[in-house]
Amino acid sequence: MHIAFLGLGGMGQPMAENLVKAGFTVTVWNRSPASAEALRASGAQVAASPKDIHGADVLITILADDAVTENVVVEQGALASLAPGALWINMATVSVAFTEAMDALTRQRNIGYLAAPVLGRVDVAAAGNLNILAAGEPQWLAKAQPIFDVLGQKTWTFGDSPAQAAAVKLAANFMLASAIETMGEASALVEAYDVGKGDFLGMLTSTLFAAPAYKNYGAMIAEDRYTPAGFTMKLGLKDVRLAQQAAESKNVPMGIAGVLRDNYLDALAHGDEQLDWAALATVSARRSGQKPKA
Amino acid sequence: MHIAFLGLGGMGQPMAENLVKAGFTVTVWNRSPASAEALRASGAQVAASPKDIHGADVLITILADDAVTENVVVEQGALASLAPGALWINMATVSVAFTEAMDALTRQRNIGYLAAPVLGRVDVAAAGNLNILAAGEPQWLAKAQPIFDVLGQKTWTFGDSPAQAAAVKLAANFMLASAIETMGEASALVEAYDVGKGDFLGMLTSTLFAAPAYKNYGAMIAEDRYTPAGFTMKLGLKDVRLAQQAAESKNVPMGIAGVLRDNYLDALAHGDEQLDWAALATVSARRSGQKPKA
Amino acid sequence: MHIAFLGLGGMGQPMAENLVKAGFTVTVWNRSPASAEALRASGAQVAASPKDIHGADVLITILADDAVTENVVVEQGALASLAPGALWINMATVSVAFTEAMDALTRQRNIGYLAAPVLGRVDVAAAGNLNILAAGEPQWLAKAQPIFDVLGQKTWTFGDSPAQAAAVKLAANFMLASAIETMGEASALVEAYDVGKGDFLGMLTSTLFAAPAYKNYGAMIAEDRYTPAGFTMKLGLKDVRLAQQAAESKNVPMGIAGVLRDNYLDALAHGDEQLDWAALATVSARRSGQKPKA
Amino acid sequence: MHIAFLGLGGMGQPMAENLVKAGFTVTVWNRSPASAEALRASGAQVAASPKDIHGADVLITILADDAVTENVVVEQGALASLAPGALWINMATVSVAFTEAMDALTRQRNIGYLAAPVLGRVDVAAAGNLNILAAGEPQWLAKAQPIFDVLGQKTWTFGDSPAQAAAVKLAANFMLASAIETMGEASALVEAYDVGKGDFLGMLTSTLFAAPAYKNYGAMIAEDRYTPAGFTMKLGLKDVRLAQQAAESKNVPMGIAGVLRDNYLDALAHGDEQLDWAALATVSARRSGQKPKA
Repeated sequence: MHIAFLGLGGMGQPMAENLVKAGFTVTVWNRSPASAEALRASGAQVAASPKDIHGADVLITILADDAVTENVVVEQGALASLAPGALWINMATVSVAFTEAMDALTRQRNIGYLAAPVLGRVDVAAAGNLNILAAGEPQWLAKAQPIFDVLGQKTWTFGDSPAQAAAVKLAANFMLASAIETMGEASALVEAYDVGKGDFLGMLTSTLFAAPAYKNYGAMIAEDRYTPAGFTMKLGLKDVRLAQQAAESKNVPMGIAGVLRDNYLDALAHGDEQLDWAALATVSARRSGQKPKA
Repeated sequence: MHIAFLGLGGMGQPMAENLVKAGFTVTVWNRSPASAEALRASGAQVAASPKDIHGADVLITILADDAVTENVVVEQGALASLAPGALWINMATVSVAFTEAMDALTRQRNIGYLAAPVLGRVDVAAAGNLNILAAGEPQWLAKAQPIFDVLGQKTWTFGDSPAQAAAVKLAANFMLASAIETMGEASALVEAYDVGKGDFLGMLTSTLFAAPAYKNYGAMIAEDRYTPAGFTMKLGLKDVRLAQQAAESKNVPMGIAGVLRDNYLDALAHGDEQLDWAALATVSARRSGQKPKA
Repeated sequence: MHIAFLGLGGMGQPMAENLVKAGFTVTVWNRSPASAEALRASGAQVAASPKDIHGADVLITILADDAVTENVVVEQGALASLAPGALWINMATVSVAFTEAMDALTRQRNIGYLAAPVLGRVDVAAAGNLNILAAGEPQWLAKAQPIFDVLGQKTWTFGDSPAQAAAVKLAANFMLASAIETMGEASALVEAYDVGKGDFLGMLTSTLFAAPAYKNYGAMIAEDRYTPAGFTMKLGLKDVRLAQQAAESKNVPMGIAGVLRDNYLDALAHGDEQLDWAALATVSARRSGQKPKA
Repeated sequence: MHIAFLGLGGMGQPMAENLVKAGFTVTVWNRSPASAEALRASGAQVAASPKDIHGADVLITILADDAVTENVVVEQGALASLAPGALWINMATVSVAFTEAMDALTRQRNIGYLAAPVLGRVDVAAAGNLNILAAGEPQWLAKAQPIFDVLGQKTWTFGDSPAQAAAVKLAANFMLASAIETMGEASALVEAYDVGKGDFLGMLTSTLFAAPAYKNYGAMIAEDRYTPAGFTMKLGLKDVRLAQQAAESKNVPMGIAGVLRDNYLDALAHGDEQLDWAALATVSARRSGQKPKA
């Protein structure tokens, strides 16, 4: 199977590497060519441009957002280079509306389309242990499964329509942002009574909230450690906005999403755009007049 | 050590039982006498009224709320029956303001006071596996430790002032309610795209959110199973209100708490007062016009 | 008719003065005696204490809050000094719960009770042009009407139960706070596009929002003029809290009230407790990183 | 001066009529031709398509939204038909981002651009009494003034950049929606105490809130009269979303806007899409379990 893989950022690079190692024929492309050269050393072919992927059975993209994906795949011609019967797997977090548009566009060309965003950060991607959230028609899911088996520990499927996986991914990121905000509000409350937030969060993440999401972000909040950013505040706001848009088109009120949005804006207005999105937790402290420990 | 134990509800009953079994001399009282009689069979003495506890070294209470605690301990005379140098351990979830008032009152009488609310439900209490969230002066914490060792798997201490443990407990319950609301909003979002909330929550509570709180409430939400109530909607609202009051007196804005409050009210206005507080998750579905599967 | 008037603050002083001028026999009392002495010069009698009002047909109070009213009227004995058949008119902004409690208490003693809070500030009170929001049994309303005719330009009645007027007054103050917050948010939005908030608010308060509330507070916001305070931030928060409590006991969600509450807390945490409650409008600007013009 | 006027909806029809009556040479176009024919009878020329406006000195559009405006003006060629030095006045409520894009596009072609949305409904437009909120370069404002003098009672200018008037209009509509929501929440509160919302709103709109916006919408709310719609719920939600987008790009948190958004969605999920946007006030009543009087 010949795979074209576009987008070699933090996540894409190790994912493409794993596919090469697993024996797939892989053609890669990236906007900045250095990442592609590293893959060449591992055995991948390097495309000169997104459209230079003729003969690929499967196109995988994991690009920054809707606009970049549209630019690379549609405007720069990757999609046009695919033969009828090929499959495009979009593994990025993009909007539901864009997913629906790409689903419609690929159907016109008899190309398959799967949304397959992932849970897990760079180290998890490198270990091939991602959780893959997939949706699309069964025949395409079946075709993609050998690829998913290389990239992830488990594939979770959510229906025949790619929009379903896009919605699930946005809902999952909403839950992460909500957990961060919740820890921020609760920490501001206990700190106001001179209880260290580290003591408080340490207790809860050892008991009721002993889950990876809480342990990971809880430790960052406890230590006020928001650099280097695994995922920036700016991207956090973007994903909340995408969740709100997906909700709005189905008339779903989400009260907490509104709180998240306003607090991300507050943080960005205070210069925290490039911090890890766990820095959302600092907003309640600042609003309460609490100073960081330094 | 002679322990007086007032309040034999779902939690108090097995806790008192464990203390009797551990060899303490225990005098119990309960508003409805049947629970006390059960303890008598296990070896406890039964007080005819709250004030009938002369000679107790330690008074433990775990009563419904501020008002009931004040009535039983202050107005009905339990506190007046304690000798100077005795210790009162309040293990209920009560307000920070009431905690501060009882702390001041006991100091006037040279009686020790600890706030020691717990995490864990009835089965955990029966197994002696509670997590105990304690605060108060070190000498009283030391005196209480043998008792805590019987009742819980671990004692977490949060400072010299009982108000600190009261604040921690309210912050913990706020985090639980927030997790429930978050699952409710996220479920409404994915259901709007015809993704079953059970599939969605099953995935997340096996991965990023694999914690007791999410697994427990996630399963209830997935199945729309809100009876029998482990903790009612009405009590959920009460605890959110207490968290807001504790926050207000320290000027801490808590945006999510405001969302929780309004959605609890919405649920109560729709007759759900006696459901388990996880039924908070039904509000987003109803507001979105989604019907329960049933 | 012999009137006892307790509470000679900014509002009470000119109101009592107007009653004296209108020919009523008036006995006054105030915690700090200077205000009472000024009334003596106008022809009022001065009581040495709240209970020193024997023979009064009508007791009028306009005191700071629930606690002060309870202290002065119940604990210090004013109510006990009234004969059966007398009438108590409470013209302060107090909670619905306190209103219900006082209604019940006065019934036990065969004393009438009216809630009659007012709209209008000091200058309006002095001119006898208040709007009086009254509720209670018709016979007591009839008895009070000659008094209301002196104090106000119009009496608006809202039912047989004093709680109804208390709720109306809290709802009115909620509407004022909401108008202030709305102008604050809208001003932050236009200022972000370099439109002066004075130009923006000037236009709206000359057109769609040409009402006293908007003109008054809009001018203060446009000029960042929050001293001297006609009504402080701290009192603004108190009234929002009372509206929330009244709403909570009837299961009424009020989303905007939650926003108001959090923004008042933010302002108080930043030291603005003693500013006029229109300073609520500064919170959105600060959260957006906008600097006051100075 | 030759004016091309595109968009003869409820507002556009009487505005174009007034320009014809004032003696301007007016060429009109509308998607459904009936409206244009009515104008022909008054003396206007009728264009066969948007691009059929050669020779126009000024293009005025008042079309449904960003997308329709872009379609009619850009894609269907109206803009391309204007000569350099001509002026486009966009009088619709559109997004700030679209305004900025059109400002940039017209500059490339040496065409002037003004944003000039209006306050006032159909009857006000017919009477030539609109309030015109204008922004753009001074020379274009000067050129437009004779037109504005026909259409409105007053022109309010907000700066050199068209985006400024777009932001002002969105902020004004946000204030209207907030006033409606506020009346809805306050009405739910007083109705819970059996005070008629008509009595309550009648009092306030005669006193503190005696402004056109409150009187107009207050009467509709008091009577539960939401048809015929002057402006639909669906459009209300759209304008709140545009205000949020304008705020988001400048990092301005707007807590009330979030409440409005969720309550519009709640209403739409309950089938109220085509009611007047004052029906936002019904959401708090429904959430509280209150039934319409019918």
